[in-house]
Amino acid sequence: MTSLQTYTVTGMTCGHCEAAVREEVGRLPGVEEVAVSAETGQLDLTVSGPVDDAAVVAAVDEAGYVAERS
Amino acid sequence: MTSLQTYTVTGMTCGHCEAAVREEVGRLPGVEEVAVSAETGQLDLTVSGPVDDAAVVAAVDEAGYVAERS
Repeated sequence: MTSLQTYTVTGMTCGHCEAAVREEVGRLPGVEEVAVSAETGQLDLTVSGPVDDAAVVAAVDEAGYVAERS
Repeated sequence: MTSLQTYTVTGMTCGHCEAAVREEVGRLPGVEEVAVSAETGQLDLTVSGPVDDAAVVAAVDEAGYVAERS
């Protein structure tokens, strides 16, 4: 059973940015799938159980961007 | 004795793009130093001897962008 957590990420401009976010967020325990768009700023996480928003925000920060739960 | 070759690169948007160009172009024999800016699109190569423009254009293409000698 998976569920979806959606965030808005600001500052991404290109595919490299998307890849950086995908890599950092994809390391979080419980994250099964990451869909991210520089164009819309949308970050969708398919999770196997609830993942702390703070952990997601920290991972996105690690990649160099700012995320908030939407 | 080094000299400078300058190019205009279109399509870069961020530091990741600059890094991709830097990596590809930096591999070319004769290239001593790479300075690249996504903001201005300027790519400056410090070379130890003449480097073929075609090789530079191909390396930038490999990174995903278009360069022309300026």
